[in-house]
Amino acid sequence: MAVRTFVVVGHRVITSPDFNLNDLAGSTGRLDVLLRCVNSAFFLSHDIRRDTELYLIMLGPPNPPKTIRFAGKELRYLNPDERSTAALVRNALRVWRDGGGGGREICASPGVYISCMGLSDVLKSLEGRTVYYMREDGKDLMFLEIEENPVFVLSDHLNFSEEEEKVVLKYAKEIVSVSPLSLHTDHCIILVHNELDRRRV
Amino acid sequence: MAVRTFVVVGHRVITSPDFNLNDLAGSTGRLDVLLRCVNSAFFLSHDIRRDTELYLIMLGPPNPPKTIRFAGKELRYLNPDERSTAALVRNALRVWRDGGGGGREICASPGVYISCMGLSDVLKSLEGRTVYYMREDGKDLMFLEIEENPVFVLSDHLNFSEEEEKVVLKYAKEIVSVSPLSLHTDHCIILVHNELDRRRV
Repeated sequence: MAVRTFVVVGHRVITSPDFNLNDLAGSTGRLDVLLRCVNSAFFLSHDIRRDTELYLIMLGPPNPPKTIRFAGKELRYLNPDERSTAALVRNALRVWRDGGGGGREICASPGVYISCMGLSDVLKSLEGRTVYYMREDGKDLMFLEIEENPVFVLSDHLNFSEEEEKVVLKYAKEIVSVSPLSLHTDHCIILVHNELDRRRV
Repeated sequence: MAVRTFVVVGHRVITSPDFNLNDLAGSTGRLDVLLRCVNSAFFLSHDIRRDTELYLIMLGPPNPPKTIRFAGKELRYLNPDERSTAALVRNALRVWRDGGGGGREICASPGVYISCMGLSDVLKSLEGRTVYYMREDGKDLMFLEIEENPVFVLSDHLNFSEEEEKVVLKYAKEIVSVSPLSLHTDHCIILVHNELDRRRV
């Protein structure tokens, strides 16, 4: 089965489970932005995109980096609202803390994995796949060939630092864009999916 | 200024302010679906779409119908997360209840209006505009001419009843679709915006 992978960096997103589900936009370093990316990446009307994989790279205090990987083909207990997805993320961070972490990625719930990988580690682990860096001034994805099993790298509401951008550019084949306007990250994911969906028909 | 209007019907969405912000997906008749439509309709990366207007038609108990209209050009206090938008909706329902309603649309907060209009009333109030009914089996919007100031009518996760569909078809110029797959309502709004954004450039 072909795979579509999205890698999203949350620059200030909290890396401990000690946050309040009632204040997701206020006290979590904008975890809410990443939660909406989970919704965009996986939901079809009556199904989950089993061919999709999403990495949330969380770089905020107190224990960065943490990466939560959602694997569509195994995912369970995912609902479209922000709060219930936040509970899955919180559970993953708890499992990591209680399990003592170590170096390995561990499974927190079906289809949800957590590790201490950072951006460079994640992209390295995807070597061999074709990476597209999504940036407003990129080439229009609509007019490009897209390789099989593509990886799309996006930032949250904050831009990549110079150093992060260097890492992304080291792996990226193209810098691509999906809109003439500057959009939210989760909206870009919808547009990438649609472009890929249209090509398969 | 050109206007883009979205009309979304929430078939079971609660029409009283007595709901819990901590259980938006569970006890509100899926108000969460409509909240995500608000996000899709209005958010750009660092701005709000001032040219957009959104009607949420709420048909659940105890006092249907209620319609909340978000007017982009006047909107304030809108944040992208579900919970804070739910608070705006709850406030509108409270203002309606406390104000005794009457027949008129009233302003609940800047850019947020509430009335007791139903689907037929809303479409009638938009007469003169070109209406597009969004349904999975519609014509691909990408290959259609789109009239100035279009109105797009969508349902939530439930299909329109036969009677509702008759009303929509009475006003609609075309039945249109934006994807080869069946998508969530808020994802469709993103795709419609993108199609319109691309044409203006």
